[in-house]
Amino acid sequence: MSSREAHELIALVRAGRIAEFLSRAEELVPADLADVLAEADEFERVEIVKLLPPSLSGQALWELPQEEHPEETLAALEPEEAAEIVEGLPDDDAADLLGELEPEEQRLILSKLEDPEQREDVEELLQYDPESAGGLMTAHVVTVSVSESVAEALDAVRRQADQVEDFSEAYVVDADRRLTGVMSFKRLVLAPPDRSVREVMEELDATVPPEMDQEEVARLMARYNVSAIPVIDRDQRLLGRITFDDVTDVVEAEATEDLLKFGGVSADENLGAEWRVATRSRLRWLLVNLGTAAGGALVVWMLQGTLDRIWTLAIFMPIVGGLGGNTGTQALAVTIRRLSLGQISPAEFREVVGKEMLVGMANGLVIGLLAGGAALAVASATGQTPWLGAVVFMAMAGNLLVAGTLGSFVPLLLQRFGIDPAIASSVFVTALTDMCGFALLLGLASWLLL
Amino acid sequence: MSSREAHELIALVRAGRIAEFLSRAEELVPADLADVLAEADEFERVEIVKLLPPSLSGQALWELPQEEHPEETLAALEPEEAAEIVEGLPDDDAADLLGELEPEEQRLILSKLEDPEQREDVEELLQYDPESAGGLMTAHVVTVSVSESVAEALDAVRRQADQVEDFSEAYVVDADRRLTGVMSFKRLVLAPPDRSVREVMEELDATVPPEMDQEEVARLMARYNVSAIPVIDRDQRLLGRITFDDVTDVVEAEATEDLLKFGGVSADENLGAEWRVATRSRLRWLLVNLGTAAGGALVVWMLQGTLDRIWTLAIFMPIVGGLGGNTGTQALAVTIRRLSLGQISPAEFREVVGKEMLVGMANGLVIGLLAGGAALAVASATGQTPWLGAVVFMAMAGNLLVAGTLGSFVPLLLQRFGIDPAIASSVFVTALTDMCGFALLLGLASWLLL
Repeated sequence: MSSREAHELIALVRAGRIAEFLSRAEELVPADLADVLAEADEFERVEIVKLLPPSLSGQALWELPQEEHPEETLAALEPEEAAEIVEGLPDDDAADLLGELEPEEQRLILSKLEDPEQREDVEELLQYDPESAGGLMTAHVVTVSVSESVAEALDAVRRQADQVEDFSEAYVVDADRRLTGVMSFKRLVLAPPDRSVREVMEELDATVPPEMDQEEVARLMARYNVSAIPVIDRDQRLLGRITFDDVTDVVEAEATEDLLKFGGVSADENLGAEWRVATRSRLRWLLVNLGTAAGGALVVWMLQGTLDRIWTLAIFMPIVGGLGGNTGTQALAVTIRRLSLGQISPAEFREVVGKEMLVGMANGLVIGLLAGGAALAVASATGQTPWLGAVVFMAMAGNLLVAGTLGSFVPLLLQRFGIDPAIASSVFVTALTDMCGFALLLGLASWLLL
Repeated sequence: MSSREAHELIALVRAGRIAEFLSRAEELVPADLADVLAEADEFERVEIVKLLPPSLSGQALWELPQEEHPEETLAALEPEEAAEIVEGLPDDDAADLLGELEPEEQRLILSKLEDPEQREDVEELLQYDPESAGGLMTAHVVTVSVSESVAEALDAVRRQADQVEDFSEAYVVDADRRLTGVMSFKRLVLAPPDRSVREVMEELDATVPPEMDQEEVARLMARYNVSAIPVIDRDQRLLGRITFDDVTDVVEAEATEDLLKFGGVSADENLGAEWRVATRSRLRWLLVNLGTAAGGALVVWMLQGTLDRIWTLAIFMPIVGGLGGNTGTQALAVTIRRLSLGQISPAEFREVVGKEMLVGMANGLVIGLLAGGAALAVASATGQTPWLGAVVFMAMAGNLLVAGTLGSFVPLLLQRFGIDPAIASSVFVTALTDMCGFALLLGLASWLLL
């Protein structure tokens, strides 16, 4: 939904045209309503949430990105109203929302829940890190016993079905609730009713422990092409399941985060953030960049004598620095993405850097020849020594080799020290290639031309 | 799977330890086998594909990224062998693989398929663009008639089940195969057997036309939280369905593509590409960048007189240029990602650029004051006019305002002209901010200081 449409809906609320608002809002999916809430201010948000049916409010709040702090809206309501909204949500989504609140507020809202079983389920889920498999899972799963017949299993599924949101398979457990297999919908309706579940059940492709990071869960589900994945504890006991809709948003959100971080924007800046918020969030990185850019300036300062005597070098500074920055950024993009997809094992670090060095060297030779040729032309046009061409060639070739090396080495190093390579690499690599490029250009010139 | 493990498996094949290879390979999921194929050379690939059971070979080839050209391996086999592999695949995946072949090779392999029905299905799918909904869908769907009872519907599902890969719902169609609703697994087993399908069926959340782009399909499925989406023609007739596993890869692949393009790497460079391939792919952008960087150099050339007289300016060139580049990149990252998520409607263009101008201006004032202060210190240390501080302040503030403006305006402009904003924006914006920064710095200096 575009922000224009969202504002139209908010305007209806503001104008008191509630019936019109409700009739339009109730035709929207929760994700669209979340867009409306995202465009509303805190006061309007509370009002909209109170107007909508509680279960729709809950789903819309759940769909709101974390940076929008949906829990604050929940906290602004009376505990009874908040509890009503939480009651309309599946246990995993309810835990997601409540998890962001202060423990005291959590307890207050939980104490108002009418169903003690839901309270217990949500409390249990609240113990897990919200970005882990445990935080994503729902405890509501359909199970059948490994010792039942197919007909009995189908009956068991029927009995459990109305407590579970939606499902396309039943998990097969033994007497100790240990997960032993899975019965797909297809298998359940196709298998002869008198066969035992043990005989016809399928093997499980993959399971995850509750501690697994959500990004890894998403990757695993995509790899195994499964729409749901069971969560089991150390004793193989079934704790819950994660469905594909809990992780599709993860994949997209992580992709957004990676791209923004790569562009020097903090992950906590919402894409549609207001200009004041965006300014603050980006200023931090610009300040870091100001510090790193000072490195390049320092090199120029130190080699000022050369520049003062051969001003033509100033023309080639932005070219050598710029191309180095871009070569570094190319190597960075490939390396960061491979790291984020889990495609590089520590044993392969040397190989990855080796490849990027080769790429940097090869492109450095080509670009260096072109830039050196241009420098030669400038030199002959301005009556300077043709050695200027050689200096520019060597500075460019050397800088691109360094850029390829750093572009792969820096993210690998940061990753090894547990620092997110996406956020910090770009600023440092481009500053280092600037410094290196200027040092090569001015240093070689002072050595060969003066 | 890490490339090391993949190479171990390939080494087994090379050493002729086939039994050992097969026993290890058959424990892998197709995505892992695809990793093995990706690391193998063309000759080894053909050998591995011949060794594996045909259906496993087919799935592994299907999981191979397009840049790896799985179809070439298929073409290197005898048509009968290729047909056997295609026979083990669902119709949509078979069409994906065959779609990349020359029409003649396609016909040859299709003619060897034993099941005429499969041949027909695949031929039909081959008519759609492989990156469209039609290209992603499978024609194999489970349908029930709107006029049946639930018990009859369940029987109908049982009859169709073994022709369909996997499913979690049945589509409800009328006598003309027009899609009218959906019966989930849950509904099918819970609803009283004597009720009619018409009474108990659910409404469809979303459908897609066969022409819809795969990225849009993926976004729609994430938005509606559905694991499968039906494809219908203009008359509402059911053509097939797309399942979540066809699009999870799309979301991840598009994210990879966006990040790489943003970093100046063509989308056709596979992440694990060999260095020669990577060099060629990246050189193209570096050549474009060489052209754009020449713009910055030209500005310096034209204002050489100023630089020649006040060499201190050369110290501030990389700072003003670098910070401008980074501010532009920040605005670019946010704008490109919002465009790629479909969050900006044409009516909002002005608003988006307005916000980025404000952000650029605000940060320009802060960064400008800091850089201007530093310039003041340099000026007093080197006995130059304090006006140098004012020049650096104005150049920095102006350049960051321009950077924010261009960083949002350029991608919006490219998008409007149908050019992918991710690939081309970065090179142009950083070159333009370099040019603008140098022009401001040197231009203001020549006006105020000389």
